[in-house]
Amino acid sequence: MAILTSASVENGTNASSTSVPWLYDLTVDDTTFVMTSSFIIFTMQTGFGLLESGCVSLKNEVNIMMKNVVDVVFGGLTYWAFGFGLSFGRSHMSLPFIGIGDFLVDPGTGDHMGPVFAAFLFQLSFATTATTIVSGAMAERCNFKAYCLFSMLNTVVYCIPAGWVWGEHGFLYKLGVVDIAGSGPVHLVGGTSALVATAMLGPRLGRYDNGLDPMPLGSPTNALMGLFMLWWGWLAFNSGSTFGISGHKWKYSARAAVVTMNSSFGGGFVGLVHSYFLRKGTFDIMDLINGVLGSLVSVTAGCYLYRPWEAVVVGAIGGAIACLMMPLWDRMRIDDPVGATSVHGCAGLWGVLAVGIFALDPKLLNTTRGRSGVLHGGGWYLLSVQALAALCYITWSATVTFIILWIVNKIIPLRMKAHDELLGADLTEHLIRHQGVGVSRVLSALINQQSNEHQIVSLQNITVVGRNTGKGNIHIGWHNSVERVQLVFLHELICT
Amino acid sequence: MAILTSASVENGTNASSTSVPWLYDLTVDDTTFVMTSSFIIFTMQTGFGLLESGCVSLKNEVNIMMKNVVDVVFGGLTYWAFGFGLSFGRSHMSLPFIGIGDFLVDPGTGDHMGPVFAAFLFQLSFATTATTIVSGAMAERCNFKAYCLFSMLNTVVYCIPAGWVWGEHGFLYKLGVVDIAGSGPVHLVGGTSALVATAMLGPRLGRYDNGLDPMPLGSPTNALMGLFMLWWGWLAFNSGSTFGISGHKWKYSARAAVVTMNSSFGGGFVGLVHSYFLRKGTFDIMDLINGVLGSLVSVTAGCYLYRPWEAVVVGAIGGAIACLMMPLWDRMRIDDPVGATSVHGCAGLWGVLAVGIFALDPKLLNTTRGRSGVLHGGGWYLLSVQALAALCYITWSATVTFIILWIVNKIIPLRMKAHDELLGADLTEHLIRHQGVGVSRVLSALINQQSNEHQIVSLQNITVVGRNTGKGNIHIGWHNSVERVQLVFLHELICT
Amino acid sequence: MAILTSASVENGTNASSTSVPWLYDLTVDDTTFVMTSSFIIFTMQTGFGLLESGCVSLKNEVNIMMKNVVDVVFGGLTYWAFGFGLSFGRSHMSLPFIGIGDFLVDPGTGDHMGPVFAAFLFQLSFATTATTIVSGAMAERCNFKAYCLFSMLNTVVYCIPAGWVWGEHGFLYKLGVVDIAGSGPVHLVGGTSALVATAMLGPRLGRYDNGLDPMPLGSPTNALMGLFMLWWGWLAFNSGSTFGISGHKWKYSARAAVVTMNSSFGGGFVGLVHSYFLRKGTFDIMDLINGVLGSLVSVTAGCYLYRPWEAVVVGAIGGAIACLMMPLWDRMRIDDPVGATSVHGCAGLWGVLAVGIFALDPKLLNTTRGRSGVLHGGGWYLLSVQALAALCYITWSATVTFIILWIVNKIIPLRMKAHDELLGADLTEHLIRHQGVGVSRVLSALINQQSNEHQIVSLQNITVVGRNTGKGNIHIGWHNSVERVQLVFLHELICT
Repeated sequence: MAILTSASVENGTNASSTSVPWLYDLTVDDTTFVMTSSFIIFTMQTGFGLLESGCVSLKNEVNIMMKNVVDVVFGGLTYWAFGFGLSFGRSHMSLPFIGIGDFLVDPGTGDHMGPVFAAFLFQLSFATTATTIVSGAMAERCNFKAYCLFSMLNTVVYCIPAGWVWGEHGFLYKLGVVDIAGSGPVHLVGGTSALVATAMLGPRLGRYDNGLDPMPLGSPTNALMGLFMLWWGWLAFNSGSTFGISGHKWKYSARAAVVTMNSSFGGGFVGLVHSYFLRKGTFDIMDLINGVLGSLVSVTAGCYLYRPWEAVVVGAIGGAIACLMMPLWDRMRIDDPVGATSVHGCAGLWGVLAVGIFALDPKLLNTTRGRSGVLHGGGWYLLSVQALAALCYITWSATVTFIILWIVNKIIPLRMKAHDELLGADLTEHLIRHQGVGVSRVLSALINQQSNEHQIVSLQNITVVGRNTGKGNIHIGWHNSVERVQLVFLHELICT
Repeated sequence: MAILTSASVENGTNASSTSVPWLYDLTVDDTTFVMTSSFIIFTMQTGFGLLESGCVSLKNEVNIMMKNVVDVVFGGLTYWAFGFGLSFGRSHMSLPFIGIGDFLVDPGTGDHMGPVFAAFLFQLSFATTATTIVSGAMAERCNFKAYCLFSMLNTVVYCIPAGWVWGEHGFLYKLGVVDIAGSGPVHLVGGTSALVATAMLGPRLGRYDNGLDPMPLGSPTNALMGLFMLWWGWLAFNSGSTFGISGHKWKYSARAAVVTMNSSFGGGFVGLVHSYFLRKGTFDIMDLINGVLGSLVSVTAGCYLYRPWEAVVVGAIGGAIACLMMPLWDRMRIDDPVGATSVHGCAGLWGVLAVGIFALDPKLLNTTRGRSGVLHGGGWYLLSVQALAALCYITWSATVTFIILWIVNKIIPLRMKAHDELLGADLTEHLIRHQGVGVSRVLSALINQQSNEHQIVSLQNITVVGRNTGKGNIHIGWHNSVERVQLVFLHELICT
Repeated sequence: MAILTSASVENGTNASSTSVPWLYDLTVDDTTFVMTSSFIIFTMQTGFGLLESGCVSLKNEVNIMMKNVVDVVFGGLTYWAFGFGLSFGRSHMSLPFIGIGDFLVDPGTGDHMGPVFAAFLFQLSFATTATTIVSGAMAERCNFKAYCLFSMLNTVVYCIPAGWVWGEHGFLYKLGVVDIAGSGPVHLVGGTSALVATAMLGPRLGRYDNGLDPMPLGSPTNALMGLFMLWWGWLAFNSGSTFGISGHKWKYSARAAVVTMNSSFGGGFVGLVHSYFLRKGTFDIMDLINGVLGSLVSVTAGCYLYRPWEAVVVGAIGGAIACLMMPLWDRMRIDDPVGATSVHGCAGLWGVLAVGIFALDPKLLNTTRGRSGVLHGGGWYLLSVQALAALCYITWSATVTFIILWIVNKIIPLRMKAHDELLGADLTEHLIRHQGVGVSRVLSALINQQSNEHQIVSLQNITVVGRNTGKGNIHIGWHNSVERVQLVFLHELICT
């Protein structure tokens, strides 16, 4: 988000010295733009759902989408209840480390109604995104009920560092940190959470039995559809982060969109080249997906501070980092099914630092307080602040995620039971049975071994998804007697 | 839609007393906002298509999406031809019960071109949504040609009550009914249609042979993707229903978006809890989907009249109603495959009434004519009007849907032939054959029994979707002779 | 795009005579509208990906989506590097045939930053669309690496004719050609490219062995989802092509949206009727898809110049052309798997000509320089210019596409090796193995015949997508020892 508004820029003063915080200094046009952007940003949830669901094996594809729904429902509810307040609370009790106030957001019908609701909606779209990043890393082995609990508490992990950067009380804000659309508070924080979560959960059963090669995707087409949806959503994510169009903001909003696209060209190019050389002339879809997403993550922090060619470079490096880190985690037996750690964590870290290197002071906005990055003669101050911020994000996110998961694990064990994991969460948590993915064989084996367990025996009777209805003892003829059809005893033939 | 515009509010007068009807009193900024909202609302058609297609068995998943395309094509054509005119016609012949005028919408290139086209586009996006609601309830057993006919006529069911509420001629409008984005004219009307349609069609063959448990979904992942798309589309649906951003409208537009999200948090929460307790600790995806959708339906009528916490309550009740009603219809042997009756009908009824209870007069707009709901000290008038309106919607929709379907049934029988239903509409209507869903077995059985029927025998030859092409008597080598490949007689091996 | 801006219209002068080219004469509101439209237009890439992926056989569905990603990455990179410059370059070296200047687009942070970035973003969304049209026609047999190369060079095919029509240097622009959103430079050019490409590649192996009937679709549901996404994206495509909302542009923007929808009603209707009569009462999904898309393509050139009922007619003719041409190409053994030639090429040609017949001078904008089509008493001039333009598009596109593909083919053979094509590109290019599509049988046959080929043998070991993980020698109990589960030797049972 643009740190300052046009009004304050024109006065050459910091908005925080006025009575209206920058977050709420929105005109009607700003509000409309912020709202429209939010609508599009929310479509990224569909993208995350599809990408994650396409990356896991079929026996868990519904479960992971359910977790994405839960992220919005529980993550949204807690963000409204206390997350927004901890980020941007305006009471006098706010500290450099934490905001206080504006809990259960409700600005009434006064003058600030429009801006406060628009600002909250925009932040809400960010918050739910941050939570969703973690869900992919925990896929295929995390208990659903434990995840629901985690999803509620995870709001804390995001909202505190968001306040550091974007709240006027924040200590990083005061130091002059620059993070326009959240490479740090959204992606680096989310990626660090993902790393801690996946490490605590341990690898999926049998994941490394046959070496380090990735597991086959469940639905590569859905994964690519998810990439597309995230890509276009990202345009609104970054472009909308000027937080309006008034004053000179509209110019930087247009710049942000082009810079974001250019960055993805760099990342996609690197992903393809990487795959070509490492995989003997074939093109791995995860390399391409992670190349593009890594570039998008990395350009997010400085999305209107780079020149177009610089964006290609920043994105290319971000994409390379995402692609190269993926196999390294596997070597450490850290099993991140969708690569959230590499894409959001590692490329996010690069994104935070890249601002200190490539940022060019946008003269017409006060985003960087007049500072520039190392390459534009701005010296080392900005890079140092960005590095400090990165350290803070990582430390905070790792610590708090660990604590939350430790507590959750005491209440409900995080890890699914072994036989549930073998059967897949779709069957055991949602009673959905897929065909042809080996579930039936696992089920038979388990029943033979532990035939006294009621739960597993009852799973046996669940019908496979999509099968022909019209089964049972159908008396064709009762309905269409005029057809004189006499097919009474199809029963055995059809429904078995 | 906001009943009044800023101009008229500032004058303290009702827009209907001026020469420009409120519907067309749009500034350039209003028009842009209404258009952008419409673009997003149309994406809800994709959401409906996916949700419905994911809920039915695979042998009908294409058929139901085709019906959604038909809804736009035929529903759109008739809405342009006469639907908009019956809703908002401006001729002097308009009666409190029906609008007359503006048929074959074409405002020419005069002053009103912008507002009229924008208003029509917005209403069109509503109208196609209303039609689509019914398609899900009729799934898996309704003849495609009969549905096409119904889709054309169904416009009447929606457009008349829309005129009652939003047209200046409407008797409910004059009584002071409040329905911002259509819990009544869109959802309650659509849900009532769905109930009548599903009751007239009767349950699917074999639906209740093995008890009341729901049939397995065809594609749970598609159903969840559909939920996501509807969710974000709903933001534009409700937010855009301020019908602009001029005057104070932008503030309420932002409010509508947040209230809508908050409501869905309540509904999703209830859906999860409901599932957990009723289904022995597992989480049914239809409970979650219907919880969220029920909450969205129910908040629609008063989407900027509630305080954020009230929205959570309204949504929670709406979600609970949707979840609890689903099994009740099945007990009455009313087989609604996607739950349209519960989600749109029952939660829509609650949405209409909720305005009378929770609405708070938005001082800056004239939406409620200064009235408030029971809980805000507004007395019983508003609730009474809302209840009367609900009664009118239900009576109208049930009666007219019955008449239309009765007529359609005389021309083309609504119900598919029994053997077509067993085989699935994808095969019999669209010649698409799925693999592994039991169609082949039904086909064999039918052919054995009635081998003289030409149609069924010819279906036997249709190739299964997605199968390997490159079959037939391939002479590899003619194309890549440099490769010196000598694989001439793969024929039998590959194409069988 | 609207040829003139409000400012210049009000002065009654052509914007090209002022210092600011029309392309960059954008207010803040114009810019916001253009950006929002661009965000939505980019979602059409998802639509193209799904439609194409749904139309090909499953063994190639990932490959075609990868090609769509590549179109954005490489097409975007080259469009930024030189495509935009060749279309709209503002240097004094620009000729009527080609623009020069503005390469590696970077307007700095001066006054023009906002408009230039917004204009570039909008044109970029057009350019990537134009490239993507061709990918479908080359599906299932084009080498991936060759396609990457083609995708980079293909930018030239689009950007030159775009300059003719929309650049102030363009000779067609000077002649008064009218093409608001690109039936010509986008669709006719893309469709002609598709025809040349498919003719050069030759039909898929075995395509016509069993007659001319189309191959079964891979995923009809995905194809229909793609149709939906393209449909709503098209609204922004056409509506955004007023290139803003200032002056009177907003009125025509709203008109464009309604005209576009009405056209699709006509096309969809024709598609259904066509299918009903030609296919013995069944409804083919490709007829409906091509009917709707053909109508959208054909209305694009004159999207705010038609009256609503004329739009229905233009769309109906466009849809009919698309449906009728499909089988004709097959008779000529031109194998276009997704029908790009018919939908974009043939209906695009009709769209270009339709302007000369139906266009009505929009008095408030200078789009047609005061001219009208034949039916509105404008005489034959406009139709002649449109016909000339069509001839130029076709000649240019056919020639340059042929040259580019000829060069690419010298570097990397365009056509996949025969055994790669039989196995499908998903397996051979991306190491993704689908289940139940006949790949395993082809693989066995190939190995028997040429067992010394290392590549094919190694493909044998790739795991099928979506299969149950948790395989291998699982020692259940190490993780959940508290459960006392003793299922140690599930190995053979589960993982085979």
